[in-house]
Amino acid sequence: MVAVTLLGGGNLAQHLASAFFAANGIELRQIYNRSIAPIAHWEGKVLVTNQLEALVETDVCIIAVNDQSIETLSKKIAPFNGLLLHCSGTLDLDVLQANSRTGVLYPLQSFSKDKEIDFGKIPLCLEVSDTADHSKLLYLANSLSEKNIWMTTAQRKKLHLAAVFVNNFVNYMYTLGEEICVENGIPFEILHPLIEETAHKINTLPPSQAQTGPAIRKDTLTLEAHKKQLQHQKKEIYSLLTAALLKTQK
Amino acid sequence: MVAVTLLGGGNLAQHLASAFFAANGIELRQIYNRSIAPIAHWEGKVLVTNQLEALVETDVCIIAVNDQSIETLSKKIAPFNGLLLHCSGTLDLDVLQANSRTGVLYPLQSFSKDKEIDFGKIPLCLEVSDTADHSKLLYLANSLSEKNIWMTTAQRKKLHLAAVFVNNFVNYMYTLGEEICVENGIPFEILHPLIEETAHKINTLPPSQAQTGPAIRKDTLTLEAHKKQLQHQKKEIYSLLTAALLKTQK
Repeated sequence: MVAVTLLGGGNLAQHLASAFFAANGIELRQIYNRSIAPIAHWEGKVLVTNQLEALVETDVCIIAVNDQSIETLSKKIAPFNGLLLHCSGTLDLDVLQANSRTGVLYPLQSFSKDKEIDFGKIPLCLEVSDTADHSKLLYLANSLSEKNIWMTTAQRKKLHLAAVFVNNFVNYMYTLGEEICVENGIPFEILHPLIEETAHKINTLPPSQAQTGPAIRKDTLTLEAHKKQLQHQKKEIYSLLTAALLKTQK
Repeated sequence: MVAVTLLGGGNLAQHLASAFFAANGIELRQIYNRSIAPIAHWEGKVLVTNQLEALVETDVCIIAVNDQSIETLSKKIAPFNGLLLHCSGTLDLDVLQANSRTGVLYPLQSFSKDKEIDFGKIPLCLEVSDTADHSKLLYLANSLSEKNIWMTTAQRKKLHLAAVFVNNFVNYMYTLGEEICVENGIPFEILHPLIEETAHKINTLPPSQAQTGPAIRKDTLTLEAHKKQLQHQKKEIYSLLTAALLKTQK
């Protein structure tokens, strides 16, 4: 049994709390947040506090707050004797307490407050400062997810960057598509099956081989017709991405 | 019972042929392609030819070849007495024979040769030159798919443009993410759950509301750190899309 303290009350912390609370072999002992309200619904199930001085000792303390607050919070709490983790894709290990055993548990997913998440399918990226903590972190990760992967800080940062392309930028492409639909009285929903199929296809085909469209066919008539229909930012984005796709065909 | 002729032997034509052959209330009578090989497996089931002079009369003739060849092929065949359709997202009705009754059956999906497609879930965009053909085209479309939508030529062109953003450009974002992974020894597969979730999320939340990431949080530290890791085209794309996302927050 591994006893866990969780610091944070945002989307990630709430999803982690639920997952740890339900996990076998894990005792979620305490949740801290600077205000009680977001974590008040945990009272009666685990210790709940907004006082850093009230933190009890556990095996693992997970700092699940936003990147900007991790270092400050880590340095505010009393020296931690267990394994101290953060959940960031972009931060080094040394933003945590210098004299503690430290590590990373970075869940590769985008969390929305009201959207249920099956933690079992979320890849967890793992790192520890001291290899002696290897098995403890793996035990913790295995209790949450079946997909765990060790990586270096440098790899984690690159993965976070790749995630910006396949998640944030992809969602922005959806937004631009939605705007074009709305401006022209077309229900955006009719693009849903195409969006699902595009995401689904890469399970069987690398995206570089799955590429279709007028740029890849060098269909200059369609490309020009499209550009004429666009203005400002959408036109700039269309032109840059089309030029990049045309280059891949050389 | 509606008798159908299909012209073409590419991905779309093959998927349409299979769907029409299996559909109730449709008789796929003949398939033409300029070379027999791609359609030879239909011999014995339907009439197969590579001679335009051998085309038999049917109720509906569907030109399912690439956009560049539709007009030429339409003008090569004998004047057609039934309903003559093309399947293009970008072309006007008048690329078809001037004196025929014409229409459009544009399936909003990207077809790969070896990937099975459930036609029943693919939205079909419909248009006819003569409203008298409305019910015939609807009958045909209903035999294939449960999702049919009438739209004007102008709307269809806009929808095709929106599809480039949510399909072609999205897939290119996947490619860029894959490149970053491969360059850094990270298996691209660990991004699959995030990709699926991103596509899935828009079923419950408009993409403009689902947007996450460092740009939307105005997390300039992460944005600068990301830019430093990128070069050339990826850096240009990252910068342009980030600038666009930052603007949406003003």
